[in-house]
This record gives sequence, structure tokens and C-alpha cells, in this order.
Amino acid sequence: MLLHVLYLVAIVAEAMTAALAAGRRRMDWVGVCLLGSVTALGGGSCRDVLLGRYPLSWVENPALLGVTAVAAMATIPLARFMYSLRRLFLLLDAVGLVVFTVIGCNIAMAMGLSVPVAIMSGMITGCVGGVLRDVLCNDVPLLFRSELYASVSVLTGGAYIGGQAMALPHDAVLFAAMGFGLTLRLLALRFNWNMPRFIYTQDLH
Amino acid sequence: MLLHVLYLVAIVAEAMTAALAAGRRRMDWVGVCLLGSVTALGGGSCRDVLLGRYPLSWVENPALLGVTAVAAMATIPLARFMYSLRRLFLLLDAVGLVVFTVIGCNIAMAMGLSVPVAIMSGMITGCVGGVLRDVLCNDVPLLFRSELYASVSVLTGGAYIGGQAMALPHDAVLFAAMGFGLTLRLLALRFNWNMPRFIYTQDLH
Amino acid sequence: MLLHVLYLVAIVAEAMTAALAAGRRRMDWVGVCLLGSVTALGGGSCRDVLLGRYPLSWVENPALLGVTAVAAMATIPLARFMYSLRRLFLLLDAVGLVVFTVIGCNIAMAMGLSVPVAIMSGMITGCVGGVLRDVLCNDVPLLFRSELYASVSVLTGGAYIGGQAMALPHDAVLFAAMGFGLTLRLLALRFNWNMPRFIYTQDLH
Repeated sequence: MLLHVLYLVAIVAEAMTAALAAGRRRMDWVGVCLLGSVTALGGGSCRDVLLGRYPLSWVENPALLGVTAVAAMATIPLARFMYSLRRLFLLLDAVGLVVFTVIGCNIAMAMGLSVPVAIMSGMITGCVGGVLRDVLCNDVPLLFRSELYASVSVLTGGAYIGGQAMALPHDAVLFAAMGFGLTLRLLALRFNWNMPRFIYTQDLH
Repeated sequence: MLLHVLYLVAIVAEAMTAALAAGRRRMDWVGVCLLGSVTALGGGSCRDVLLGRYPLSWVENPALLGVTAVAAMATIPLARFMYSLRRLFLLLDAVGLVVFTVIGCNIAMAMGLSVPVAIMSGMITGCVGGVLRDVLCNDVPLLFRSELYASVSVLTGGAYIGGQAMALPHDAVLFAAMGFGLTLRLLALRFNWNMPRFIYTQDLH
Repeated sequence: MLLHVLYLVAIVAEAMTAALAAGRRRMDWVGVCLLGSVTALGGGSCRDVLLGRYPLSWVENPALLGVTAVAAMATIPLARFMYSLRRLFLLLDAVGLVVFTVIGCNIAMAMGLSVPVAIMSGMITGCVGGVLRDVLCNDVPLLFRSELYASVSVLTGGAYIGGQAMALPHDAVLFAAMGFGLTLRLLALRFNWNMPRFIYTQDLH
């Protein structure tokens, strides 16, 4: 199934971007593997823990640990080519975001949860991995600051669930929602779209 | 029920203080909503995950996600008045702490858990939201450094559970414990009470 | 049972090193207790939450909370002697790593999980407490940067599980794996062994 292939592409892309973040923090090879796996599998794991859905994906299918660790390690020799491949990379990262999102929505709906929870489930699946990566690298999560990442996830999830509610065929809705989210994300990157910021400088104490 | 109303006041107050923290980090509007929701609902979610109590509150009642996101967004236009309202705010935040604490104790006792675990459950409910907020803002958690926040929670939980063990009427114990905790917290703020610090400067390696 | 005694030594050692980290961040006494307990019990708690294994150890046996809090507090008056005791300390910390690792492997195997998941379970039990400590102290986790800590855990777990697969007597395998891991860790500390680092300085955006 195409979604399964896209899922593998997504976790590989997430593991590789996490490996580059590890390299920026001068981590050792073990740190690269661990950060890659935590980033790629952390969103889905967080979703499953919050929804009480056991076993987690990597417990059921431990090959995922190998895939993410190998993808992270492979980034080390490939790093010199990363800059010239950065457009491909940002594309794969955006594919990952929308694929994770629809998978997360799907899982919550299969559990019979409500629409807002399904949208949250999609957003957690798509975004929490990157938050864990940034916290472990001692950065303020990018998610909270830029580029419509979370917004794209919420809108993709909303389109996917809304389309199904209108009784349209599932696969058409799936690809339309993913295409919509992907387009939005790439436009946001291309034109540097951002949400307005809230800037506050006082201290209440 | 009064406790339910106070719970809503508490999550609104927590979401609003988190929104101000987001503003200090120049987060965008989505970051403000996310940080507000994570802070307000994170303590209870962490407690439920640690105790294995499913579904989580916001999964069962997704309106809570809306309440916290709206409270966080509403903070943006209100921010200019926050400084003059800071006493009201610190009062609401203190109310939140004691309300979260007694709710957390209650839940653990209803699960038949032991007294120390019930006190921990109260402290986790009352304090973990703020820890998540500080970690996501890339700060050392305030909880670990100041103002008897965790101590007030432990003492409130102890008073609440101790009073019940003495077979006093539940509502009287509830309000006495909350009044005691609230008074202690406000006195700590007013007179700048702090626990002694541990200062260590050597490195073992 | 010896493993149980070693487990208590391990959580005491972890709580005490966390207390020193708290002192470096000038935390107050409550922060010292909390950071000590979170560090000592966080690895096992994270493992149990990820594997869906309830109740957690400190919920079932709340005395563990007392042990870790007391160990952390006792570090404050003892801190002046820590430097002269640092070799004992690093030894106890290394004992803690291998003990936590074999306990984590054991638990996963008793749940019937696969070998890679059991090795991960050992590594999570051995290493996540220190990651939580570093994140709460606003540091990049040491685990990702130095001293074969995670590698020792993986190799110890692999030796322990591999030895059992060869149908060797359990206790012989247990002590051989722990001795192997302990030796490796102490050699790594003594000779300052490190994994190679990945250093990357470009930004993809």
C-alpha cells in the first residue's frame, strides 16, 4: 500500500534531518542514531501513549528501529551532499508531515474518537518528533515559532476528516488532503509565510 | 459543582500564563495556542499516563482543548493590561495550583492508590504543566528553583488526605485544605519565602 | 536477592548524581529532591509507559520515592566530600547503568517481547533518567555526546540476552554480562574512550 511506502519515506526523512541537527550539536555516532530514532518514531509513540494504544509501532515492528538508526548513520557520509539536495529534503520532510498527519487521524478515528481528538492525533503524530528533537538539542522548538508547520498539519487533518464526513471515496479524500497539505507547506517555505508573532516583554513578578 | 468551575478557572489561568511565556519567546500564534494547551492540560495528562488511567481528560472532553486554545489566544490582545492585573493573575494561578492538587489527590485515591502516591499525583497534576512550559521555552523549570510551588502542593495534598483520614466531612476538608494551600502560596509570594538553595560548583569528572 | 540490593544501590547513586547536578543549577531543596527522584525512577517509568506495563514501580512501591528523595537530600551535607569520593561514585554510577540495563531487558523478555525491543528496554531503563536530568537542567543530554554510556548499555543487554539464548545458566550469564558492561564502562572512563563525533555546520534553510 502506497501509504505504507510513504510512511517509510517519512521516517527516513525525519531521521536524516534529526541526524543533521545532531551534527550541529557535535553529538557522537550513538547520539546521532538515538536522536534519529527518537525524532522519527517519537510522534507516533507520544500519540499512542496519550491514547493508551498498545503496543507501540516499534515494539510491534522492531525493524523500524533499525531503519531509523541506519538512516541517521547514513546521513554522516552523505552530509556533504545535503546542501545541494536540500530542496529534495525539504520536499521529503513535507511529505513526512502530511503522511504522519493522515496516519494519526486514521488511528484516532479507528479508535472511535471525536473529530477534534482525531485532528490533535494527526498533529501530535506529525509534529511531536520535531519537538523532541529540538528539546533534546536544547532549542526552543521550531514548531512554536515558524513556517506554518503545525497549521499545515491541522488543516491537512481537517481536510481529510471533513472529506470523509462528506462520504467521498476514501482514497480520493486521502490524496486530496495530502496534496493540499503538501502544496500549502511548500508555498509556505517558498514564500516564507509565517503566522503573526506574539511579542511580550514584561515580567509579572 | 464548585470544584468543576474552579477547574475551568485553573486551566484558563494556566493557559494565559503560558501564553505570556510564549510571548516572551516571540512564538507565533499557533505556538501560543499549543503552549497554552500543553501547559494547562499537561499536568493532568502526565498524571493519567503515569497511573495508566485512560482516556485522558481532553480525549474524553475535547472542549477542553478549545477552552485552553481560546484562553491563550485571548491573552494576546489582553497582554497590555496584564501588568495592572498581575495580582488577580497570581491569585488565579495559586487557585489553579491548589485545585489541580486536590483533583489529582482525589483521582489517585479513587483508584485505591496509597497515600504517598496520592500526594505525588496531586503534585504532578499541579506542577508538571509548568515544567513542560519551561522545558519547551528552554528554561530551567521554575518549580525547581523558587517560591514553594511544589511544597505548597505537597502540603495541600497532605492536609486534604490527612483531613479525610480523620473522617471529617469531605467538603469541609476540601475547602480547608484549599484555603490553607492558597494562604501559604500567597504568603510565600508576598514575603518572597523560598526554600534554602543547594549550591555546588565542582565537577566530578 | 542480590539484584534487588544492587537496584537500591543504583537508584541511590542516580539520585545523588542528580542532586549534584541540581546544586550546579542552584536549585532549592525541593528541586533537589524532585530532580533526584525523577532521575532515579524516570528510566524505569519511561520504559513502563512505553511498554504499557502498569502499575509503575514507584506506584506499587512508594517507598522508592522516599529512598530517592532522602538520598538526594543527604547529598547536600555530603557534597563537600564528593570530590574525594568521586571514584567510588563513578563506580556506583557504572553499577547502576548495568543493573538498570539487565532489569530492563528482563522485564521486556518476561513480557514476551522481541530481542531488539528487550535491548531497547534495557537502554531506556539505564539511560533515560540521565536524559531527563539533563533536559530539566537545560543541558544537551550527556548521553548523546560522550563516554559510551548508551553503547555500554546496548552491549550489556546484548551479552545478557545472547548468553541466555545459548542456554547458559541464568545467574552466570547475568553476572558475566554485568561484569563485562562494568569493565567496559570503567575502561571508557579511565582511558577517555569516546565514539567518533559527527560535526555538521551548515543550515538547510
